[in-house]
Amino acid sequence: MSQQQDILRDAMRRLNLTRDAFSERLGVRRRALDTWLLPADSGESRAMPEMVGKFVAEILQREAQATTGADDRPLAQRIAAEGRPHLLSVAQFDRDSLEALFQVADVMQPIARRQKVTRVLEGAVLGSLFFEASTRTRVSFGAAFCRLGGTVCDTTGFTFSSMAKGESIYDTSRVMSGYVDALVVRHPEQGSVAEFARATNIPVINAGDGPGEHPSQAILDLYTIQREFSRMGKLVDGTHVAMVGDLKYGRTVHSLIRLLSLYRGLKFTLIAPPSLEMPAYLLDLVARNGHVIEQTQSLEEGLRGADVVYATRIQKERFAGEEIEGYTPEFQIRKALVDTLCKPDTILMHPLPRDGRPGANDLSIDLNHDPRLAIFRQTDNGIPVRMALFAVLMGVEHQVARSMRDAGWRSPAHIGPDDADFDGLD
Amino acid sequence: MSQQQDILRDAMRRLNLTRDAFSERLGVRRRALDTWLLPADSGESRAMPEMVGKFVAEILQREAQATTGADDRPLAQRIAAEGRPHLLSVAQFDRDSLEALFQVADVMQPIARRQKVTRVLEGAVLGSLFFEASTRTRVSFGAAFCRLGGTVCDTTGFTFSSMAKGESIYDTSRVMSGYVDALVVRHPEQGSVAEFARATNIPVINAGDGPGEHPSQAILDLYTIQREFSRMGKLVDGTHVAMVGDLKYGRTVHSLIRLLSLYRGLKFTLIAPPSLEMPAYLLDLVARNGHVIEQTQSLEEGLRGADVVYATRIQKERFAGEEIEGYTPEFQIRKALVDTLCKPDTILMHPLPRDGRPGANDLSIDLNHDPRLAIFRQTDNGIPVRMALFAVLMGVEHQVARSMRDAGWRSPAHIGPDDADFDGLD
Amino acid sequence: MSQQQDILRDAMRRLNLTRDAFSERLGVRRRALDTWLLPADSGESRAMPEMVGKFVAEILQREAQATTGADDRPLAQRIAAEGRPHLLSVAQFDRDSLEALFQVADVMQPIARRQKVTRVLEGAVLGSLFFEASTRTRVSFGAAFCRLGGTVCDTTGFTFSSMAKGESIYDTSRVMSGYVDALVVRHPEQGSVAEFARATNIPVINAGDGPGEHPSQAILDLYTIQREFSRMGKLVDGTHVAMVGDLKYGRTVHSLIRLLSLYRGLKFTLIAPPSLEMPAYLLDLVARNGHVIEQTQSLEEGLRGADVVYATRIQKERFAGEEIEGYTPEFQIRKALVDTLCKPDTILMHPLPRDGRPGANDLSIDLNHDPRLAIFRQTDNGIPVRMALFAVLMGVEHQVARSMRDAGWRSPAHIGPDDADFDGLD
Repeated sequence: MSQQQDILRDAMRRLNLTRDAFSERLGVRRRALDTWLLPADSGESRAMPEMVGKFVAEILQREAQATTGADDRPLAQRIAAEGRPHLLSVAQFDRDSLEALFQVADVMQPIARRQKVTRVLEGAVLGSLFFEASTRTRVSFGAAFCRLGGTVCDTTGFTFSSMAKGESIYDTSRVMSGYVDALVVRHPEQGSVAEFARATNIPVINAGDGPGEHPSQAILDLYTIQREFSRMGKLVDGTHVAMVGDLKYGRTVHSLIRLLSLYRGLKFTLIAPPSLEMPAYLLDLVARNGHVIEQTQSLEEGLRGADVVYATRIQKERFAGEEIEGYTPEFQIRKALVDTLCKPDTILMHPLPRDGRPGANDLSIDLNHDPRLAIFRQTDNGIPVRMALFAVLMGVEHQVARSMRDAGWRSPAHIGPDDADFDGLD
Repeated sequence: MSQQQDILRDAMRRLNLTRDAFSERLGVRRRALDTWLLPADSGESRAMPEMVGKFVAEILQREAQATTGADDRPLAQRIAAEGRPHLLSVAQFDRDSLEALFQVADVMQPIARRQKVTRVLEGAVLGSLFFEASTRTRVSFGAAFCRLGGTVCDTTGFTFSSMAKGESIYDTSRVMSGYVDALVVRHPEQGSVAEFARATNIPVINAGDGPGEHPSQAILDLYTIQREFSRMGKLVDGTHVAMVGDLKYGRTVHSLIRLLSLYRGLKFTLIAPPSLEMPAYLLDLVARNGHVIEQTQSLEEGLRGADVVYATRIQKERFAGEEIEGYTPEFQIRKALVDTLCKPDTILMHPLPRDGRPGANDLSIDLNHDPRLAIFRQTDNGIPVRMALFAVLMGVEHQVARSMRDAGWRSPAHIGPDDADFDGLD
Repeated sequence: MSQQQDILRDAMRRLNLTRDAFSERLGVRRRALDTWLLPADSGESRAMPEMVGKFVAEILQREAQATTGADDRPLAQRIAAEGRPHLLSVAQFDRDSLEALFQVADVMQPIARRQKVTRVLEGAVLGSLFFEASTRTRVSFGAAFCRLGGTVCDTTGFTFSSMAKGESIYDTSRVMSGYVDALVVRHPEQGSVAEFARATNIPVINAGDGPGEHPSQAILDLYTIQREFSRMGKLVDGTHVAMVGDLKYGRTVHSLIRLLSLYRGLKFTLIAPPSLEMPAYLLDLVARNGHVIEQTQSLEEGLRGADVVYATRIQKERFAGEEIEGYTPEFQIRKALVDTLCKPDTILMHPLPRDGRPGANDLSIDLNHDPRLAIFRQTDNGIPVRMALFAVLMGVEHQVARSMRDAGWRSPAHIGPDDADFDGLD
C-alpha cells in the first residue's frame, strides 16, 4: 500500500467520495487528483506533494475515530463461518468487511497483472474438489493460489471414487484436510459445501453448491463495479443496475443483489420473462434495505439509463422440459441496442460463459470491441479477488505487499488484442 | 533431528524400550521423561539436562557397536528393488530399514503439520500415473511431493491414450521417465508396476497394482501404530492386533500383516466370514515368525482385549455375483461394542474409505468423537510417510532437517474439529 | 553458454562445419577437438587453450559481419505469428531462427537432465488446454514449464464445460488468458489453435490441431537429428533421410520434411503403400528447394544407406472403413533388416507411440537394445526444446544460463537401463 495511487483510491473508497468530492474535500483541483491517480509508469503521472499525503492520512484517522464500533479483528475472524475461516456465503460480509477485502484485492493487482511475484504461500497446497465440471472457476482459483506461491492438487473430472463407495462428506473432508492447506469445493447439492466445512478447521471456499451460492463470483462482480466506477469517479451508492435474463435460477444474480443491497439508494431494473423472475424473498430484502426495484419484460425499458447492465445466460439445464414462455430472441443485448439505450459510461457485465452463437438470448459478440464491455475485466478480477480470499483466510494478507518482487518474464501490456486502452493503465 | 523430543523418541525406538523402561534405563522419573517429550511450544515442556542428552547418545553408540552387521549404506540402497530405487513391495523392508524410514518420517512431521516448509525437491517433477481412479492416494502422494518443494504432473482420469494404441509398458515408462524425476503408478494388473520399474532408473512407487500390493499404505499403517504406541508408552512387540472384514482380498491387510510379522511375539485375531478368510500362505508366514493367530467369525470374540483393531470394508467389486455368506450387519463395529470389548487405549484403524451409510458392515460413524478412532491420524500420517519415501528414494533425506524454515501462513492447531486433544501436541 | 563444449558446438553449428572440417579450420587435430567436446565431468575431458577460444570467437565475429541482413531482433519477434509471440506452425521458422532456438535448447540440457535447476519462470502459470487426450505431449509441456520454475493448471480430460454451452473460442481464450501466462492448446479442428491465438496477447503454443500441425514435435525431431549428428561429426546438409509409414496423414512427417527442406542437398526416400503417399504439394516444396526425392513401397530399397530412418505408425483412426491396400507386415522395421540395410551410425526415429504388439507394422521392439534406436533420446529432447520455446516466447532465454544452480536430489546417470552409453555423456 505504499503507492500514492493505492493510498488515494483507498481513501476515496473508505470515505465513500467521488473524485470530484474528494478533490473538493482536499482543496485541490480535480485534474491534479487525476494525474496523481495515473499509474506510476505512465508518462503523465505526477507525484503528489508530501503534504497531501499527510492530509489524507489525517482525514482517514479522524474518520476512523468517528466510526463507533470499528472492527479491528483480523478480517478472517470478521467474516468467519461458525467461528472458522471459511467462505460459504455472501451473507458473511457486511459493507466494511467487503471493502476491507477489496483493499487486499487491490494489493494483489500488480501480481495478478504479472508485474510482480510473491511467494507468501510457498509450501502450501490447495485441494481443488470439483464434483461438477467448471474449468473456468477451477483454473481461476488454482491460478490465484499459484500466484501466491502455493501449489494445487486437482481432483477434477472424477467420480470421487471413495464417495461412490459410501464415504460420508465428513470423512472425505477430514481426510483431504490432512493433505492440503485449503479446500475449494464445488458440489451439485445445496448445503453440501457447508457440510464439508463443518468437518475441518482448514479454510473451505464454496465454489458453487448447486442452486445455493457461488460467493466468490458475486464478490468479484461487485469488485469490478467498484473498480470501474473508481476509474470513472462514480460511486456504487445511488447507482442504477439492470439485471437481465434468468433471474429465478441464476445464483450469481441472487448473490450479487444481496451484496449490492449493502450499499445505499440503488435502483434495480430486473428484466426477465414471467417464468424467470427474481424470487420474492430477494425482492423483499432489497426493498427493506431502501432500494428501488422495477420489474419489466422489456429490454428497451429496463436498460435505459442503467449504469451497470448485468446480463445472464438462460441456463437451459435448469428447466428440463419446462417451456420458457415469453423469452424470445429480442432478449439479446446487441450493440445497436446498447448504443441507443445506454450511456457512454455504462458497463456491461456477465458471469460467463455467454452463448456466442447467432440468435442466442445473450450478450452479443458484436460488442467485443466496445470498451463498455467489461466482461473480461470482470474475469480478470477473479484472480486478485480469489488471491485476496486465500490470503485473508490463511492469514497472510499483511505479508503480501512487502514480499513482492518483479516478475522475470515479459508480459503483454494488454492481455487481449481488443482490450480497452484504459485497461492496461488502471 | 536437533529437537530433544526427536532424539528421545528415536532413542526409545532404536532401543525398543517403552517410556517406563527407558526412564528406568536412564535413571530418571517417568514424569520427567514425559515433560521432555512434550512439544517445545507446549507450556509444560521442559528442556532436558545436557547430561541426559550425552547419556542417551552414549547408550545409542554402544548399542550400535553391539549390533553386528549394522547396515550403513544409504537407505535407498538397503531397500532397493533389483538394484534400483523403487518401492514395489513391502518385502523390500526388514525391521531395521523400516524403522530407519520411520525416523525420516518423524523428521517430516513439522512439515506435514504445516509448521515448517522445505524446498529440497525444488525443480523436481513427479509423474503421477493412475490407470485406475484413486483420488485420495493420488492427492496424498502429490501433496507429499509438493511439501518437499517439487511439482506434480498428473495423468489421472485418462485412458492413457498411447497405450490404447498398442504402446508397451516399457515405452510408456521410459518416455515418462525422460520428463519427470519420479513416478507413482497405480494400475489394475498385478505385476504391471514392477514392469514399469524395470524400464527406468528413476524411482517408481507402486500405488496399487490390482490384487498385488499397495506398500505405502501398509507402511503408513504400521507407522501409525508405532506413533500411537509411542505416545502411550507401548511397544509393537507383543501387541494384540484384531483384523476385521474382507481378509481374503484386502491387499492392505495382507501387506500390513507381513510388516507386523517383522516384529516379535504378536497375537492376531482375524475376524472374517468363512468365504473371506486370510489366505493360508500368509497364515503360514505369520506362524513361522512365531506369532499367535486366532481365526473367528465373531466380533465379540475377536475384538476383546485388542490393542489395535484394523477394520476393512468388504470390497463388493471383488465379488461380482458371488454370495457373501455369513457376513451380516453384526459385523458393524459400533461404539457400544468398542466400549464393551476394547480398552481405553485400544486404537481403531481403517484403510478408508469406510462405508458411512446406516447398516453398513463397517466402522460406525458413531465413533467419530471417540479419541480411540485413529483413522484420520492414520491418513494424516500418509503425508510424512510418503514424504519420507520420496526423500529416501531421491537421496535428499539428510538435507531436509537443515533446510526447514517456518511456514508463513496460519494453520489450525487441530486439523479436524473432532480431533483428540493429544493430536495437536504429539 | 560459458562452457567450452557449448561454445564449440555452437560454433560448428553456426559455421555449419563437421568436426573434421572445424578442426582443420582451427588448425588443430580432430582428436584434440574431440577431448574439448567431452563433458567437463568426464575423466578424459581437456580444457581448451585460451587462444583457441579467442580464435573461435574471432571466426564467428567475421562470419557474423559477412552475413548480410543478420537479424538481431529477439527470437520471439523473429518467429512471431501475426506480430504476437505464438508458435502455431513450423512455417514461422527459417534456418537461422531454428538454429537460434536450438542454441537455447542446448542451454536447457543440464536442467532437462536434472543436473541443474532454474527458477526464471517462478510465479508464472501455464494453462494446458487439451480438447483431445494426449498424456505424453501434455506432460512434456507441463514438465518443461515446471523445470523453468513455473506451475501448471491443467484442463485435460474435460469437455470444456463452457464451450459446450455455446461459448466461442474467442471468449474461452481471452478468459483463460486473464488467469495464466501462456497457453498450450490441443484441439481436434485444424485452424482452431490459431483462432485461440488471435484472441490473446499471451503466448499460445499449438500442441496439435487435428490434421493441421504439431510444430514442437517436428522441431524436437530436427533438434534430435542435429544433436545425434553433432555427436558423430555429421552435418544435416547432404544427409539421407528415409521416412516410413503413413506419409499421407501423418502431420509429424509433413512438418518435419518442411523443416528439413530449409537445409541443403538432402536425399529423401519415402516408403509408403500407394494409398498413404506423401501429398504432392509437399513433394513439390521439397523438390523446389533442390532436394532429391525417391518414392518406393519397398523397405529394402528405401532404407538402404539412410542416415536417418523416421518411422511412423499407421494411424488407423484416420481411415474409418477405408482399406489399407498393400500395407503388409513386411513394413515392420526389425533389427535383422536394420543390420542388413543400415549403417553403424544410422539413427532410428519415431514420433511415438509405436505399436509394440507382435506383427505390428511399426518399429520393432527387438531394437530396444540397439544404440541406433534414438526414439527415447528423441522424447527426452522434447523437454529442452519445449523449455526453449517457453523461454523464447516469454522473453527469459537470456536469464536461464546465469540463473542455474545444482539440483539437490540424486538423478540416475542414464534414465533408462537400456540407454546407450554415450547418452549420459552427450
